[in-house]
Amino acid sequence: MKPIQIGALAALVATSVALGAPDLAVAQTAKGGRGSAAAPMAQDAQMASKIRLTRKTPAYWEVTFNNPPLNVVGPAEVRRLVEILDQIEADPNVRVVVFDSALPDYFMAHYDLLKPLEESTGMASGPTGMHPVPDFMVRLSRLKAVTIVSIRGRASGIGSEIALAADMRFASREKAILSQFEVGAGFPPGGGPTARLPRLVGRGRALEILIGADEINGELAERYGYVNRALPDAELDGFVDKLARRIASFDGQAIADTKHLVDQASLPPDAESQAGWDAFVADVQRPGAQGRVTALVKQGLGQPGDLEEHLNQYTAKYPK
Amino acid sequence: MKPIQIGALAALVATSVALGAPDLAVAQTAKGGRGSAAAPMAQDAQMASKIRLTRKTPAYWEVTFNNPPLNVVGPAEVRRLVEILDQIEADPNVRVVVFDSALPDYFMAHYDLLKPLEESTGMASGPTGMHPVPDFMVRLSRLKAVTIVSIRGRASGIGSEIALAADMRFASREKAILSQFEVGAGFPPGGGPTARLPRLVGRGRALEILIGADEINGELAERYGYVNRALPDAELDGFVDKLARRIASFDGQAIADTKHLVDQASLPPDAESQAGWDAFVADVQRPGAQGRVTALVKQGLGQPGDLEEHLNQYTAKYPK
Amino acid sequence: MKPIQIGALAALVATSVALGAPDLAVAQTAKGGRGSAAAPMAQDAQMASKIRLTRKTPAYWEVTFNNPPLNVVGPAEVRRLVEILDQIEADPNVRVVVFDSALPDYFMAHYDLLKPLEESTGMASGPTGMHPVPDFMVRLSRLKAVTIVSIRGRASGIGSEIALAADMRFASREKAILSQFEVGAGFPPGGGPTARLPRLVGRGRALEILIGADEINGELAERYGYVNRALPDAELDGFVDKLARRIASFDGQAIADTKHLVDQASLPPDAESQAGWDAFVADVQRPGAQGRVTALVKQGLGQPGDLEEHLNQYTAKYPK
Repeated sequence: MKPIQIGALAALVATSVALGAPDLAVAQTAKGGRGSAAAPMAQDAQMASKIRLTRKTPAYWEVTFNNPPLNVVGPAEVRRLVEILDQIEADPNVRVVVFDSALPDYFMAHYDLLKPLEESTGMASGPTGMHPVPDFMVRLSRLKAVTIVSIRGRASGIGSEIALAADMRFASREKAILSQFEVGAGFPPGGGPTARLPRLVGRGRALEILIGADEINGELAERYGYVNRALPDAELDGFVDKLARRIASFDGQAIADTKHLVDQASLPPDAESQAGWDAFVADVQRPGAQGRVTALVKQGLGQPGDLEEHLNQYTAKYPK
Repeated sequence: MKPIQIGALAALVATSVALGAPDLAVAQTAKGGRGSAAAPMAQDAQMASKIRLTRKTPAYWEVTFNNPPLNVVGPAEVRRLVEILDQIEADPNVRVVVFDSALPDYFMAHYDLLKPLEESTGMASGPTGMHPVPDFMVRLSRLKAVTIVSIRGRASGIGSEIALAADMRFASREKAILSQFEVGAGFPPGGGPTARLPRLVGRGRALEILIGADEINGELAERYGYVNRALPDAELDGFVDKLARRIASFDGQAIADTKHLVDQASLPPDAESQAGWDAFVADVQRPGAQGRVTALVKQGLGQPGDLEEHLNQYTAKYPK
Repeated sequence: MKPIQIGALAALVATSVALGAPDLAVAQTAKGGRGSAAAPMAQDAQMASKIRLTRKTPAYWEVTFNNPPLNVVGPAEVRRLVEILDQIEADPNVRVVVFDSALPDYFMAHYDLLKPLEESTGMASGPTGMHPVPDFMVRLSRLKAVTIVSIRGRASGIGSEIALAADMRFASREKAILSQFEVGAGFPPGGGPTARLPRLVGRGRALEILIGADEINGELAERYGYVNRALPDAELDGFVDKLARRIASFDGQAIADTKHLVDQASLPPDAESQAGWDAFVADVQRPGAQGRVTALVKQGLGQPGDLEEHLNQYTAKYPK
């Protein structure tokens, strides 16, 4: 636990409040509208650098998580993600989007559990009518463009959930660590892995991942089908870039029509994503979860250090 | 084939009859009720030692099959399993249940084909309205507690089916042998693998397992997704115990809610389990199946020895 | 590109036209009937040698693709396949059918894109009411007999699709190359892999296979679950033959009933196969696809040579 980084975290909280998130949410509700590129937050240069959108070519975009120290995602980051999603949906030329991280040790630690829950639950619904988190996940899956996630470092909680909602996942064999730690913290994961993992890896391995709530390294993630493949770390970036450029060279209508057919065969009903979010919100407020989360926060949750690096061990140490 | 063990088998048959299974079934039907801890059989110390329930902690239970020589399961054993299931369902504190075997070579050979079929078909329905075998399987899957099966030795027929109906399966890499041998004996498997295996390992591998009806060793079972993982035999018990204790330390509501969400995404409809049982009962009575089963019994089915150790070879030797 | 083989291809086109496919199609429509063993084409010795049916025993049949140089399948070959399917459906004794290739380098290159599209779209519907291609695929999956595909060499497009519609797939570890190249050529695959692959290998790997549209070798195909297993080339034939003989020795009713139960749990709805075919027909006529297909034909598509051996590279080279 390094004081300077606690400071950074506090600054992040202050920034978020200063951005007027609740007001924005109210405004959106009043319009019945959705986060758009014109919203004030969208122009925030700081947030745009934290989740960076790069148009490598008109057909090939890259979204890079660059939100040190842990790439934690909270309400402000969700709004930025929705804004990027809006842009992908609106551009007929983009055919492939790669999601990666600029931080070597973290693809994304997890959702921000330090902010008041109301900041999250109070967000205006997205176009599907669902809360922005499940809304983002189901819209991400249904994009006409293909989405590829490149995982290096830890992808826990919402990091794993974004990976699962995307189309393909490739992991560093040596440096990727996936996990859905939530049950260990006293609540179910809310971003849809309960719907997606069983369809991807089968019920048995899904239950192990979700309820064992332990670390899954790159090699095991491939063996389970949690990721498409685990590649040697030195080859990961090149492999993903080559695949993305290959797909970007293909015909957009052929891609979209093929993906739509696969969607019919494989996407979970939206109701399951909604149910997952509802279960998360309900359970995270229960005393059982509050006790565990508080204990984890006291030990360093949300800050770089031993707890985040061994969250799977800390979740197992809660005194009964 | 060792005479003393044939004797043991005969004794087992006698015991079962003495327990008055048909009367019990009638009584249950009259009440419209279900097997409960108060039933006479439940107090039978012999059966309780054959399928042993150990409360390692209030949250972590263990069910051990200890029914030598083969851990065959027939009507009496099904009643004992249902009784244990009732206890798991009724206890709000149990969060994880491990199923294992005390016999080194057999997790469970298969269903008892030596008893008259009427003893099985005449059993009173369970709370789902289905026969106790499919009823047990679907209730096992829906328990709030997490179930983990540890497989060492042969898990054939109903042994494989119980493993598939449980939440997670771990196998000894050297000593586990899984199989659904039934098609080789002339009838479809009745305990639900036709519904569960395709969803777990995909249609192609499910058809190979079910219709090839051959042995699947631990390594191949992992590669196919038939089990979560195959572990070195020396590590299996420690791994399962550690995972169970980890899960037992978590919050029960978080576990139950997460499992319920996964159930929505992954459990087959009960109607498929009923259809599987019906197909088994219908086909096992056909002359084709009777000829094969009779030939297998003559050669040693249900008795320890060469046939049980090479059932996959004997099923392929039936003269046409 | 060898001139003599271009000659052979031209001869194949001429043969197909001479067979009067359109007339046959009209006749079938008028009868509301289906391709049957009595149709003129069925007696064509040349076609019977191109797709050879061998009754190894009354219970064990073999279908061998022997249509050099590439085992391309077009309307005439589809009619031959339907004719064989009719025979399998009509014979109560056949319990297992193996599909393999007599050409060492090609299981099946892909659908014939050199013939006018009308020859394909004008074919009379099959008994499911669908076009003969999706009709063949869904009927193949629902046969009472078990179907096993043995893949050596390239299985692209409809070659992969037939493999996926069959019950089990085994591949040469060294010599099998699977691919759904279609998106690279500007259109979605039409023979059902959009419905079948996601259920077999999960959404992520299915999207990679279908939209990456690249080569998948035997080893990766096994890792993904695209095939049941990849076996050393020297063992493939023996393994498949042994498995087929084993299944052929089993009871036909037990096989059919078990397969029917698995069908309930795993077959995609026919509507998805129809939708896949419709999307293929619509997209292949768009300028985007026509430009790509024309460019590929000019470079050697449908002829033995460099393009067919590296189709995955040629599809990525289309100038934008």
